[in-house]
Order: sequence, then structure tokens, then C-alpha cells
Amino acid sequence: MKIALAQLNYHIGNFELNSSKIIDCIRKSKAEGAELVVFSELSVTGYYPHDLLERKEFIEQSHQTLQHIASHCIGIAAIVGGPSINPEPRGKKLFNSAFFMNESIIQHTINKSLLPTYDIFDEYRHFEPNKKFSVIEFGGKKLAITICEDLWDEQETQNEFGREKLYQLSPLKELSALNPDMVINLSASPFSYNQENWRKNILVKNSKKYQLPILYVNQVGAQTELVFDGGSFFLDKSGEIREELNYFEEDFRIIDTESGGQNLQPKTEYIEKIYEALILGIRDYFGKMGFRKATLGLSGGIDSALVLVLAVEALGKENVRVLLMPSRYSSDHSVDDALQLAKNLNIQYEIIPIQNMVDSFEQSLSGVFAGLDSDITEENIQARTRGILLMAISNKFGNILLNTTNKSECAVGYGTLYGDMNGGLSVLGDVYKTDIFKMARWINRDHEIIPGNTISKPPSAELRPDQKDSDSLPDYEILDQILFDYIELNLSPAEIISRGFDEATVLRTVKMVNNNEYKRFQAPPILRISSKAFGFGRRMPLVARYS
Amino acid sequence: MKIALAQLNYHIGNFELNSSKIIDCIRKSKAEGAELVVFSELSVTGYYPHDLLERKEFIEQSHQTLQHIASHCIGIAAIVGGPSINPEPRGKKLFNSAFFMNESIIQHTINKSLLPTYDIFDEYRHFEPNKKFSVIEFGGKKLAITICEDLWDEQETQNEFGREKLYQLSPLKELSALNPDMVINLSASPFSYNQENWRKNILVKNSKKYQLPILYVNQVGAQTELVFDGGSFFLDKSGEIREELNYFEEDFRIIDTESGGQNLQPKTEYIEKIYEALILGIRDYFGKMGFRKATLGLSGGIDSALVLVLAVEALGKENVRVLLMPSRYSSDHSVDDALQLAKNLNIQYEIIPIQNMVDSFEQSLSGVFAGLDSDITEENIQARTRGILLMAISNKFGNILLNTTNKSECAVGYGTLYGDMNGGLSVLGDVYKTDIFKMARWINRDHEIIPGNTISKPPSAELRPDQKDSDSLPDYEILDQILFDYIELNLSPAEIISRGFDEATVLRTVKMVNNNEYKRFQAPPILRISSKAFGFGRRMPLVARYS
Repeated sequence: MKIALAQLNYHIGNFELNSSKIIDCIRKSKAEGAELVVFSELSVTGYYPHDLLERKEFIEQSHQTLQHIASHCIGIAAIVGGPSINPEPRGKKLFNSAFFMNESIIQHTINKSLLPTYDIFDEYRHFEPNKKFSVIEFGGKKLAITICEDLWDEQETQNEFGREKLYQLSPLKELSALNPDMVINLSASPFSYNQENWRKNILVKNSKKYQLPILYVNQVGAQTELVFDGGSFFLDKSGEIREELNYFEEDFRIIDTESGGQNLQPKTEYIEKIYEALILGIRDYFGKMGFRKATLGLSGGIDSALVLVLAVEALGKENVRVLLMPSRYSSDHSVDDALQLAKNLNIQYEIIPIQNMVDSFEQSLSGVFAGLDSDITEENIQARTRGILLMAISNKFGNILLNTTNKSECAVGYGTLYGDMNGGLSVLGDVYKTDIFKMARWINRDHEIIPGNTISKPPSAELRPDQKDSDSLPDYEILDQILFDYIELNLSPAEIISRGFDEATVLRTVKMVNNNEYKRFQAPPILRISSKAFGFGRRMPLVARYS
Repeated sequence: MKIALAQLNYHIGNFELNSSKIIDCIRKSKAEGAELVVFSELSVTGYYPHDLLERKEFIEQSHQTLQHIASHCIGIAAIVGGPSINPEPRGKKLFNSAFFMNESIIQHTINKSLLPTYDIFDEYRHFEPNKKFSVIEFGGKKLAITICEDLWDEQETQNEFGREKLYQLSPLKELSALNPDMVINLSASPFSYNQENWRKNILVKNSKKYQLPILYVNQVGAQTELVFDGGSFFLDKSGEIREELNYFEEDFRIIDTESGGQNLQPKTEYIEKIYEALILGIRDYFGKMGFRKATLGLSGGIDSALVLVLAVEALGKENVRVLLMPSRYSSDHSVDDALQLAKNLNIQYEIIPIQNMVDSFEQSLSGVFAGLDSDITEENIQARTRGILLMAISNKFGNILLNTTNKSECAVGYGTLYGDMNGGLSVLGDVYKTDIFKMARWINRDHEIIPGNTISKPPSAELRPDQKDSDSLPDYEILDQILFDYIELNLSPAEIISRGFDEATVLRTVKMVNNNEYKRFQAPPILRISSKAFGFGRRMPLVARYS
């Protein structure tokens, strides 16, 4: 059978845009001889609409759009994702559904059984799980239509107290009893740098176990924090990948399920994957929010340098302007390094020294602070003065401020709320400092874009004389491993110590992470590139005693 | 049977504190002749621990604490709430459980069946629903032990497309088939100003339907945004409330299920309930975070005046200091009104005019802004200058900044990010402006605390000459009704217009709400007093097209 895989970038709630993209692909698929075209999960709404799903007018618009799309399915069938209303009197009001459209109507509605409700997923908040299974007969074949998590029943559940399976039901076990010829999976599987492997492993496992070909269509594009990487593929019944679509961009391909070739994407290193994800994350945040222009503070340090390179790649150099805001503690080389980078990238920059504003704050506060020593307060005033200047540029010229905090800093609270934690989007908040160094070197692989000195000098916030990050924090090589064990692997302090780290360092690090939940609560949205990012997918109480 | 109701204020993750409170109540219950003492849902951990439930060491500590508590149950039984590990190989790793302790061991573990996963509730994120039912025989009686939502099967589900029931199961229907003598419900039901009525209605409905007495024990105290109001009670089998514990404070009472009296709490007006909830919310935020002292900016307006009154009541006047930060646009009466209030409450205040700092920003930006008109940028610089000063006081003296934004402003984005939106806790972010006026008048009911002029003058941000809120916003009487319909009732713009509001005003208001999700994303935690507060219980996508 000739089936088209339509890997599209949807905009949440933009029914007009989404339906026009879907209808274009239906036309194209028909014109190019496909019998069926498959779209991704919740394609009509974009994944994930969150509590927009609780609004009646949203569901009605979605329903009307689906009907409209179906009216274009003449001489070709399509499978489109969207919410449907649960007709039963009990349970949640909606299903997460796949609509099988043919002969200008919706012929079948297939509902999702396994509703991920962990990490960044909230599906049981809105949807009732399906418990009835059937296959769709089309073109002489029996199709087992599934939605994303429905095939993730076989996942290894890490740190789950030795759980065998996360769900009571195995949809593919139920469906395989109905003798399907092929499995189709509509997916919205967000990127993390190891997600591609997990995803392929689990689908290959399913394919081999049930001896069935699997056609997998993923969403592509970013929705605030989440980046969907595409990479849709077709597996034959022996679990061999026969066709694989592009990553990080829209793609479309018609495959022949009987004689598919072996069109695979080249393997990519994880740093390059993260780079691609961040570019797409920035581009879609701006594009979908209706913004064009960005600004950021360029300090001469590596974090802001990397954000600038990413922003220029994502938005174009004409859409990025930076501000250099030296203080009395900024070293000469910091200003030089920042200027060098701005020139290397040929972008607009301005220099506004902050000292007179800092002085006016200190003078105004001198009465209230009389007799008290300088402390973190004065450091924060510098960071916050910079925050005001950047927001002034943002407000005056409409350049959205990009935040430059990295994951290591964000974890231990090494940053000033309402100062350097400002921004509309945190680009690096899920990237550890050690990976930032790797990415900077990777960017410079052919020629120097980020000044060598920016990469080689010891990291410093430059908020007091001769300050170094290493005055307050363990070396990043150690810190990042402890943070990874605590945050991504969810290990206890005792387990981390047993892996060979210094006890005092582990306890101090864990305490810093726990004590800074209140800061992260007010952080901007963070582009997610790991399996456990700060933000929506990690919900920790503020008022709590952490042991 | 003589049963003690133990209505306690727990601290999330503070096993030491929680267990010592629980053990004290077990001792007291035994000493006073009770046969059984009942605690609230997840009492050993505090409700709600969120993703701490995913940490092994947290579950282990919880388990050890429960064993320790059980060892004190000699000559008395207790029912304590906590997580338990799911022994089955499939499903989530935990149950939300009630532990029946007697003869120094845990004799029975009863698991929660209905797991609220909507609004502020995330229980299916962590727990597997129970599907097996049994009653516990104790003291010659059969007890049907349930946990909170288990009895909410009968709720009217608003805006749910005419859903009949939210769950597939009716726990009390299952349990009633086992002929229990009484229902016990361990609860953690957060306050909203109409929650008390909903709660009583639904439990009375259950009691009457199944002809069973119900003993209901609720948590009390605040956990970040959520305020638990207590008000535990005992219903006889005809649905009459026989005993009712205090609201907004810890309480303890031994009742005789055969001959209970009629000890009811007086009815309270909703403004007074909200006032009590906010006081408790502030007090517990500070107490449980280990803080004592607060600060805020006092503008002479009604919002900051009300927050100050609440903070002084919650923390004591010696723990609150304020800053007056007049600008060239502050009217004389604003400063006078603010001073008058500070004097009425006898609290420490300082005055720091902001003009020289604002001037130094404008001067530093004059080159970059050359030839451009003044706009919102300059207004924001004023608000952000105040934000820096307040955070400087906070950093230097350890006074946590209280945010003074109200729900109406927060809804329409009438506030400056990193300026007046700063703060560790938003006190009024769930209170509409019209209710703020009501509460101010209620506070002044016996004598004037808040200056009359603060209440009677037209609201203004005073960021430009002669500015009034009504220049940019509909009258609060109209605005608040539209916001309530859109946010609390989840009505569509068309439905709101059909209720008699001006179309242009409705569309403009809804657009402002939708366009400001990005600001609210970075707002402080907001004390929740309504059925739909901004924050955790209202999850809207940032990158979306809202129609």
C-alpha cells in the first residue's frame, strides 16, 4: 500500500493554519498516488493544548475543522489526530483520538488507551482512556491504529521501584489478536537528546514481538518549552527501519509498505542534536508568538555568547541586537571578547556602562543601609540594573529578551531573580555548563566564531572583584555529574555519594538545588532537551522540608 | 464508638514534625478515652508532596515514619494517611493510602480509588487507582474507610459537556454492598470561598443516599498556594451535621458516634472567609519556609494597603516594614495615605523617592532611545526601579517581599514584569478588585484602619500624569464579572456577550487575558481562594493562537 507520512509543524489552537497544512498534504498525497496519508497526534489542535481542552469553543472549533478536513478526503483516506467527545455518561469528557477519514466523512474514531501522566505529560487531566479495540479495514488491509503512548507499554520504567509495566493494558496485545496487517502510530514525542534511541528501541521491540510493520508519524516543531523532533519512520515486520524522515523540520514522504527502500537519516552526535533543537525552539517560539526580534546582554562569558550564536542562527543577524553593560568589576577582556563576538556575527550592539545607575541605587539606599556591610544585595543590584536596561530595550524596540542562564546555575540558584534570570525564553536552562563548553567548541569546529578566550577563561559572574564561579560552586565537571544523578536519575544523596563523590560536596549541592525551588518557580519557560528539565515536567513543592 | 478527629497542620516532607504531632494526638485520644483517632489524607507527608513522591528516599522515610507511628497504637487504633507501594507488577508504583493501625502494627492498608486529576490536583501523576473494596471490622463495627475524592463521585461536574460522573467507579456504592456501619473519610480539601458548601452538600448527599453516618477529617493549614481550611465534621445517617470542628486552625475533638451533640460552627460571610484564608496562607508560607519578616511597597493605593493589613495580622507588626517610593507622578494624597496607614498600624517605614534612579536610567538610555517618544518603557522603568529597591531591602534584611497584584490586574496583564509583579508570594492574585474593596470596608467595619481616601479614590498606577486605571481598563464592576465568567465559569466570549455585556468590552478583555499568559508564567505563587486561580490549577499554553 502507498501511504504518505505527513510530518508537520502545527501551531496550538491555530485551526486555520493547521487545517490548511493538513489539506495541502492530503491534496499532495492524492496527486502523488498515495491511498492513505497519516498525520501526527492531535494534529488539528497541535500538541499539547493543555486547558484549552476544557473550553467548549475550542472543542467545537476542533470538531468543525475536522469535518472540513474530512470533506477533502475524496479518492484518498487520511488519519488525523484531535480530541473527540466521550459519548458515555461516565468518565472524562474527551478522548484523545485518531480520525479515519474517507469518502469525505469521518468513518472511524479510534481513541488512545494509554495516557501519559508523568514528567511533562498531563493527558489524564483531560482524557478518558480507551478500553475497546478494533482494526480498520482499508485497501484490503487491516490497520491497527494507535496513538503515541499506546506503543510505550513495553518501556523500561526507570526508578520505578522495579515496576514491570506502567499500565494495566497492552493495546498492541489486544490489537494483535485481531490479526492486523500493519500498525500505524500517530505520535507527539518531544525531543530529548536520547529520546530518538528510546523511541526506536521500543518500536523495534514492538515490531519484533508482534511481527508487524509499524508506520510512525511524529509531530515536528516547538511549542514553548517542548521541541518535537520529527524523525517519523517506517519499520518492517522484522523491526528493520526502512524509511526515516528528517529531523527538526517538516517532511513528507510516500512509502510503499510492500517494497520500502532503506532511506535512513545519518546518525548525529548529541551536541549537534541539542544545537538543532535549541535553534528550532527559538525560531518557533518567536514565529508562533508573532515576534521577530530578540535582544540579550552580552557579558563576554560563554553562556551569553552561545545564546547569541543560536539566536542569530534561528532569527537572522538583522533581528538580534545586544547590549554590553560593563561594571567596575568587568574585566577588560570581557568587553573585548563580547565586542569581538558581536563583530564576528556582524550584529547591532550598544554599550551602556551600569555604574552611574548602580551608584544612584546605593546612594538612595545609603540611609536605610547605614552601617551595614556590602553583601549579595549589592551584587544583585548590578544584575537587576542590567535586567532593567535589557527590558527597556525589549519594551522600546519590541526585541524579546532571551535568558542566558544555564542548567547548572539554574539548579543551584546561582543567578539573580529579576536580574539575569529575566527573559521571555530560557535558551540554555536545560543545558549543563559542561555541555555548553562542548557546544561552543563544536560551533568553532571549522573557524572561530566564539572568541577562544570566552571559552578558555574561568567562568565568572563578575559582580565583585576577582570573583570566580569556583569560589562558590564545585568545579563544573563534578557539579554537573552530581546534578545529573540528582535531577535526571532521581538518585538519593546517599546513592550519589556511593558512586564516589565527596559527601560534603554532594550534600551542599543537593541543598542548593532544594533551596532554590522558589527561584525556578519564577523562571522563564526553558527549552527542554533532556529527559528531566526544570519547569512543567518537574513539579516540586516550594513549602516543604527537603531532607 | 468514641472516635477522635485530629485536624492538624502538616508540613510537607517534615516527617519529624508530622509524626510528633500525630503521636501526640494518639496519646491524647487514648488518655481521653477514644477507641480510634482519625487523621487526614497523606497526613504523614503533608498534602501535596508533588514529585517528592518520585524520590525513593522520600517513600522510605514515609514508610519508616508510619511504622514508628504504628508502634504507638497500643490500646487505641489510628487511621493515618500516606503513600504505599503498589505490590502489583503493573500500574503506577504508589497508592494513596489510609493505614489502619492497631496493636502497634499497621493492620490494614486501604487505597484511594478516585484520583482527582484536574485543576490543582495531579494525583494520577503519582498514584494507581484502587479497584478492590473491603470494610474494616473494629470495636464491633464495620468501617468503610475512604479517602477524599472517593466520596466526590456524586459531584456536579460543571462545564463538563453534561457529563454525568467523572469516574467509572462509585466507591461508596461498592462499599455499601458490604453493609458498613459508618463511613470514614480522610481528606485534604483545599479552601475556596464556596468549597465549604460544596463539600457539605456532597457528603450530605452521600449520607442520605446510603443511609450512613460519615466522619470527615480534613487537613488544615497552607502549603504554598493552597490553603486547607479544616472544618472537619461528623454527619449522622440522616445527613445531619452533628459536630463541626474549627476552620483555619488546628482542632481536636472526641465524638461519640451514637450520641453526638450538635456543635456547629457559626456561618461566616465569604469576605471574612477569604480574609482568614489569606492570613493563614501568609503565616504558613513564612513559618514553613523558615522566614519571619516581610516587606512591601506602600503606594497609598488599596491593594498594598490591604496586603499590609493582612501581613501585620499574620506576622505581627514588628515583622513587617514598608517602603514608600514616590515618583514625580505620585500625588500628595498617595504619600499621605500611605503614611497614615503605616502610622495606624505602627510599623516601620522608609521613604525613598525614585526620581534620581529613574533619571539615571533615562540618561543612560538617551543615546539608544534618541528621537523616540516616551511610552510604556518609561512607565516600566519606574515600576522596575521600585522592584529593585524592594528586593534590596529583602536581600539586606531578610524580609520576604510580598506581591500586591490583584486578580483583575493579573488577569489583564496590568502590571510590570520584574517590577510590581515581584515578590515571594502573591497575596491578592486570586482576589478580584471588587472584592478587595469589600474586604477593605470589612476591615474598617469598627474603626478606620485603612484610610478612607485609599478606599474612595479612583484606582491609579500613577506612572504618568493623571493616570487612572479606567483609562486602560473597563470599570472594575464590569471587568470583574467578565473575568469571572471567562476564568471561573470557563464561558466562551459569545456566551459572556449573551449575558448582556458589551461585545467590544468582552472581546478586548478576553484578548488581554489571553495575551498575558507569558506574564503570569513568571508570577509568584498566588494564594488560592477561588475555584479557579491563576497558577498551577490553570495550565494554558504560551505559544498558542487564542481565538
